[in-house]
Amino acid sequence: MIKGISQAGLGSISTEELVRSARKYGFGAVDINTDILIADHGLEGTRRLLEDHHVIVGSIGLPVEWRQTDAIFREQLTSLAVTAYHASFLGCKSCCTYILPATDELPATYMAQSIVRLRQIASILDAYGIRLGLEFVGPHHLRTAWKHPFIHTVADTLTMIDGIDRSNVGLLVDAYHCYTTEFTADDIRQLRAEQIVHVHINDAKDVPLDQVLDNDRLYPAEGVIDLPAFLQALQDIGYTGVVTQEILTPESPSDSTSLLWERSQRGFDHVFRNISTL
Amino acid sequence: MIKGISQAGLGSISTEELVRSARKYGFGAVDINTDILIADHGLEGTRRLLEDHHVIVGSIGLPVEWRQTDAIFREQLTSLAVTAYHASFLGCKSCCTYILPATDELPATYMAQSIVRLRQIASILDAYGIRLGLEFVGPHHLRTAWKHPFIHTVADTLTMIDGIDRSNVGLLVDAYHCYTTEFTADDIRQLRAEQIVHVHINDAKDVPLDQVLDNDRLYPAEGVIDLPAFLQALQDIGYTGVVTQEILTPESPSDSTSLLWERSQRGFDHVFRNISTL
Amino acid sequence: MIKGISQAGLGSISTEELVRSARKYGFGAVDINTDILIADHGLEGTRRLLEDHHVIVGSIGLPVEWRQTDAIFREQLTSLAVTAYHASFLGCKSCCTYILPATDELPATYMAQSIVRLRQIASILDAYGIRLGLEFVGPHHLRTAWKHPFIHTVADTLTMIDGIDRSNVGLLVDAYHCYTTEFTADDIRQLRAEQIVHVHINDAKDVPLDQVLDNDRLYPAEGVIDLPAFLQALQDIGYTGVVTQEILTPESPSDSTSLLWERSQRGFDHVFRNISTL
Amino acid sequence: MIKGISQAGLGSISTEELVRSARKYGFGAVDINTDILIADHGLEGTRRLLEDHHVIVGSIGLPVEWRQTDAIFREQLTSLAVTAYHASFLGCKSCCTYILPATDELPATYMAQSIVRLRQIASILDAYGIRLGLEFVGPHHLRTAWKHPFIHTVADTLTMIDGIDRSNVGLLVDAYHCYTTEFTADDIRQLRAEQIVHVHINDAKDVPLDQVLDNDRLYPAEGVIDLPAFLQALQDIGYTGVVTQEILTPESPSDSTSLLWERSQRGFDHVFRNISTL
Repeated sequence: MIKGISQAGLGSISTEELVRSARKYGFGAVDINTDILIADHGLEGTRRLLEDHHVIVGSIGLPVEWRQTDAIFREQLTSLAVTAYHASFLGCKSCCTYILPATDELPATYMAQSIVRLRQIASILDAYGIRLGLEFVGPHHLRTAWKHPFIHTVADTLTMIDGIDRSNVGLLVDAYHCYTTEFTADDIRQLRAEQIVHVHINDAKDVPLDQVLDNDRLYPAEGVIDLPAFLQALQDIGYTGVVTQEILTPESPSDSTSLLWERSQRGFDHVFRNISTL
Repeated sequence: MIKGISQAGLGSISTEELVRSARKYGFGAVDINTDILIADHGLEGTRRLLEDHHVIVGSIGLPVEWRQTDAIFREQLTSLAVTAYHASFLGCKSCCTYILPATDELPATYMAQSIVRLRQIASILDAYGIRLGLEFVGPHHLRTAWKHPFIHTVADTLTMIDGIDRSNVGLLVDAYHCYTTEFTADDIRQLRAEQIVHVHINDAKDVPLDQVLDNDRLYPAEGVIDLPAFLQALQDIGYTGVVTQEILTPESPSDSTSLLWERSQRGFDHVFRNISTL
Repeated sequence: MIKGISQAGLGSISTEELVRSARKYGFGAVDINTDILIADHGLEGTRRLLEDHHVIVGSIGLPVEWRQTDAIFREQLTSLAVTAYHASFLGCKSCCTYILPATDELPATYMAQSIVRLRQIASILDAYGIRLGLEFVGPHHLRTAWKHPFIHTVADTLTMIDGIDRSNVGLLVDAYHCYTTEFTADDIRQLRAEQIVHVHINDAKDVPLDQVLDNDRLYPAEGVIDLPAFLQALQDIGYTGVVTQEILTPESPSDSTSLLWERSQRGFDHVFRNISTL
Repeated sequence: MIKGISQAGLGSISTEELVRSARKYGFGAVDINTDILIADHGLEGTRRLLEDHHVIVGSIGLPVEWRQTDAIFREQLTSLAVTAYHASFLGCKSCCTYILPATDELPATYMAQSIVRLRQIASILDAYGIRLGLEFVGPHHLRTAWKHPFIHTVADTLTMIDGIDRSNVGLLVDAYHCYTTEFTADDIRQLRAEQIVHVHINDAKDVPLDQVLDNDRLYPAEGVIDLPAFLQALQDIGYTGVVTQEILTPESPSDSTSLLWERSQRGFDHVFRNISTL
């Protein structure tokens, strides 16, 4: 597995600074918006920047809004192939999006439509060798934040992925969402490594499970999630991809960037200390 | 268009009798369970029986229960290729199933799972040149007969068909369900003929729309549905397939079979009288 | 059917002039490179231009080179969604490419690779409601113009389309290629209208069939192809799309543009005179 | 990896005897025709027989002839779902077929048709959780045994698999075919484990590469193939499936069954001795 870092949890750090410092703090991958670097450095310049700083791009966010109208979807889809082409040039093999656990739409129709649109997205990504990771979202409060329940479990997400029916679609497994949906390390062991496109880690406060808030996460090793068991299970099934920190908090952390780097590094060192990494 | 007949509305008529009498009453197609004939006549004998009586098989019912457990689905699926092979040998090109407008399952998951299973069904049928027709079901009382709404409109059924993503899947358009979902002749004109796999006709009682019962249908031309407009719209978009009578009633009609044949013929003659048929 | 015109056969006419004059000479559709108009008039301006001159876009050419290296393919594919989005905005529903009847590559591998790439193209077009038409190419001299035979018949093209397995892929039926592959009007009647994405007409010189040259075509009604029978067969199966003139010649015709328009109009009037058109 | 055994190389041993003795000689899997056992023991009885003798079914042969006419294909396809259902019940997850490196058909058409048929096969298997393994065939003499070259390399087989476009299709990697196509251990390391459905081992005589005959194989460790390197590469990429012995010879070996078992065991022990197995 490769340790990855994102801006979520590092305060107001720029994309470029993230790239420049990641290796120093023990991270081999960055989850970034590559467009920002390409605007400044060009495509070839961005590739060199990544190489010079010995990091790969772990995953990019999906730049297409697939949850709203057809008109918005079709317009935004026009740029996806360019994004995929750039990502592919930079060696990135993964693009991720999340699935909210509730919806104001009628769920049956919304599911069918989501399947159609995510398939179109996956087809374009596939032409560039990029996989699409779908992140199930676990916190209980979000399950009732919209009118109707949608899906929030791994089982249902895998069924949705079967519905999409493209071989380059898989799971984004986030430790926080595993925790809030009670998807255990043993459950992870029932997956095959190739079903997992990307992994997020972070930690949860010691509050009752149904009060864990999506936007109130801790750094790895600072909370109650058994992250070593989580990582060991991923290791056991042969997952060799990126594991990226994503710390969503109500407010941006006020510590200095270097303190946040150190905190992140310390957390990763702790939870990975008994796991072999690449 | 080809006039078709089924046992639903003809009392206790046998499958073979349906075949033997259809042409005499003006019908060129029968919707039947071909297994019953094959058991008695063999496959080649059934083909000859159909030819001798100048009727084709309009559509067969899907012999796979796709709405329950995986175990039931997988077991029943084993027989589908044989059914499809037989149907294909008999010249039948269509197999139909219906989609209930409500469900006790969580609708999002149920949609994803239905898409996966109907795709597997469609793939097998496709190997034998047979299309899968999905019948949306309109009556209002059924929309609340189970816990959660599923889908009941043409638009949603087309989205589901997009989700299934097999080119041999389309609509079964039933006049009763068009009537109860207020899908008009002008709406039909927005469809392309190849989106329609099969058509049912029957008529509705003169009661408020939300009190029309699924199981209380009338013979064509005996109720309030504008069937000539319905048929003309199908004709206008180039639909050349079968239009089969399907009369669901609380109890089997008590009239003699010959009276029921005549009543069916009269209804068809009336609603088709200004429409050219093949 | 809708009469369509292209620049091929009208000398040095500009795209805009083609649009402005088409209706005057009886054509309801133009096959053009829409980018040229969009560069001058913007997207909305191009839509108005087409509307003001009462023509639709019959088909656009595929802007992706899918016959060469992966690198070229992937780079060119990046622009397809934008092209499709524009075409869709302009009301165009069809995009076409041709398949050469021979290849220097090993045919089995080349077929598999072509299937993969054309599927990726079709998936992108499908997100914008645009179909992909594949033109089989008949002239005998081209069948040996490269090392190995590839495909040139309708039957093989349909098998390839099955291989691609996207419901928005169909045939471009060119009268010249039907003639040179001896695909008759009766053969056309075995097709279903929805299998045909687009149609080309033009005529052939009175030379032995195996000496008909791809690049030496005549205007409709000036040669030996029975175009009325060809069109009648398309009409009989319910084809209601565009039929575009495409005259490939060794040198650009030297007549004035207005003479070439009149010659095209005369040819269409002649071959369509007993066929009802929209 | 799990050591597997088949009848090919064990003389006239029966299927049941193979099952009964495999574990004794160190094999954890058998590649068999399960129908033979089911005929004798019933489905549940066969499951017990396998369990009692501590072996799993490594892979079954594809019971559908997909290389001949449509009529033969469609007829044989009718039984596939039953076979898949049985295999699934018995815990088998793989079904394999081979691809000849030459063909009397025109290769382009044959490839498109093979893609269509293998997709239909894969769709049925997928409904039962079974993968389809495609075996590329390397010996030089077979490349010219029919009129036209088809495919024989891993690269081309992977392109064909992309063409088939079903996520449950992958490679059967046979050491003999790797050797004869010069697909090295380092080349195997470029594959992902999930691309490999099944593995065969056997050994080759010390003759020039282009004179290695398909039907003249040796037992593992008796020839010139570097099987330890082959197995180590599979181990390195995380392949955890079955590796089955398949010894094709001009005549059935004349040694006693027990000698052939011992010879097989000795070969496996030798080539696996530095590889950890499950």
